[in-house]
Amino acid sequence: MPAPALNADEIAELLKAEFPQAFYDGCGLSIERVRYGETRVRMEFNEKTLRPGGTVSGPTMMALADFAMYVAVFSAAGRQPLAVTTNLTINFLRKPAQAALLADARLMKVGKRLAVGEVTIYSEKMAEPVAHVTATYSIPQTS
Amino acid sequence: MPAPALNADEIAELLKAEFPQAFYDGCGLSIERVRYGETRVRMEFNEKTLRPGGTVSGPTMMALADFAMYVAVFSAAGRQPLAVTTNLTINFLRKPAQAALLADARLMKVGKRLAVGEVTIYSEKMAEPVAHVTATYSIPQTS
Amino acid sequence: MPAPALNADEIAELLKAEFPQAFYDGCGLSIERVRYGETRVRMEFNEKTLRPGGTVSGPTMMALADFAMYVAVFSAAGRQPLAVTTNLTINFLRKPAQAALLADARLMKVGKRLAVGEVTIYSEKMAEPVAHVTATYSIPQTS
Amino acid sequence: MPAPALNADEIAELLKAEFPQAFYDGCGLSIERVRYGETRVRMEFNEKTLRPGGTVSGPTMMALADFAMYVAVFSAAGRQPLAVTTNLTINFLRKPAQAALLADARLMKVGKRLAVGEVTIYSEKMAEPVAHVTATYSIPQTS
Repeated sequence: MPAPALNADEIAELLKAEFPQAFYDGCGLSIERVRYGETRVRMEFNEKTLRPGGTVSGPTMMALADFAMYVAVFSAAGRQPLAVTTNLTINFLRKPAQAALLADARLMKVGKRLAVGEVTIYSEKMAEPVAHVTATYSIPQTS
Repeated sequence: MPAPALNADEIAELLKAEFPQAFYDGCGLSIERVRYGETRVRMEFNEKTLRPGGTVSGPTMMALADFAMYVAVFSAAGRQPLAVTTNLTINFLRKPAQAALLADARLMKVGKRLAVGEVTIYSEKMAEPVAHVTATYSIPQTS
Repeated sequence: MPAPALNADEIAELLKAEFPQAFYDGCGLSIERVRYGETRVRMEFNEKTLRPGGTVSGPTMMALADFAMYVAVFSAAGRQPLAVTTNLTINFLRKPAQAALLADARLMKVGKRLAVGEVTIYSEKMAEPVAHVTATYSIPQTS
Repeated sequence: MPAPALNADEIAELLKAEFPQAFYDGCGLSIERVRYGETRVRMEFNEKTLRPGGTVSGPTMMALADFAMYVAVFSAAGRQPLAVTTNLTINFLRKPAQAALLADARLMKVGKRLAVGEVTIYSEKMAEPVAHVTATYSIPQTS
């Protein structure tokens, strides 16, 4: 497996510069591990993300999975902040605990134009995954 | 077509009571129209939702679609705040303008346990849709 | 709306020439209507497609939807037999009757490289749809 | 991990009895391995499954994935021939070789009513997967 195009610190710096609405000190997101085409991202628990029934809301998990895929794309394709999701499918598996979430993203294909990956989301206090995502990112062509 | 189980005002009141983290005065979301199994929901433009490239972020549209489906489920199944998404697929079609988004949700199936629907998202300044979603909601069984 | 790039007869002839394994006299598939980016395709009932419970099998409906999308891509992008599906999501809504199936495909986006569409499948003896599909086709670039 | 509810031979026998249109001697499908909630299924190469460009058709891979999920459901939930797919998403990753296909299915959730799993499809002559599927099966309730 090749070395990652960017490491965790480089990706964090890129995100703070390019996407300050989503990634800033105190936002609750952190990049725990980066390999080529793979990453683990962590989201701290925040009461604002709860929905009726006391569970973390679906859109919170969708946003986390999309963020983890974005980081995984950078790890393989390098500095591509304009990469955009073209489609995403999420399956919710279990009600998460009121705890931090961990998202493990892994690219299954890294093409010139498209990257396809899957993300498994865990609740820190549970052994079994709480959600599974597949997504495709479109990578803009530099001329 | 039957009358909706709840009208727009009743659904708005239910959401303010049950899901105050997502739906409150000034949250930017409004329910423009409700029929049985159908709704149009509006989200005001907010600079915080922009991502690199100046376009509305994917998770913003996913959250809007999920919200529109939730309202559509109430319009058909009534007061079911514990209904939860079991899966959701989104296709991003075009880069949205920096403008309000409109989400038209329509249930294709209303079963006892599962409701399946589609949502088409429009940017207020564009004729063609910017995203399309299909989703399944699980409706808890009252005993 | 522009005229279709190819009409129903032209598409049928193209398919017989390029894809004789799937489309041949007596195969049970017919193209009932073609507009730009839209088509209705019909599949005759065949007992071989039944699965336990006496219902038409899921893969039969997936194959029909994929075929309808392929025809819709030809109606908009012209002679592109090497166009391939990059992803497809199907939701099964109701148990189909033992009857012919009709698939209405409609492209939501026709880009240079990707076409995204939805397909609604009906059983000839039922008012409500039996399945709904969204799919993306990749269109090869001619140089 | 618990023992499988049915082993490979028992599942093959069940399929021959209940679903003879799809599973019969000479059909090209075989069940190579069964664990609880997991299976590997093999499909021999057949020229009839080729599509323009000389690649195995998308619907062939969808049918194989759906079959592998069906076997995995039996391995966990036992004799449930009336279990049906409620939704399925496939991502095509690479053009398969003209060779046998292997489908590795793994359930991520086994509930009373729903089972959710993923399937990775390999072409026998290639190291990297050719397609990835997630699917949900509905398990009928015995009263």
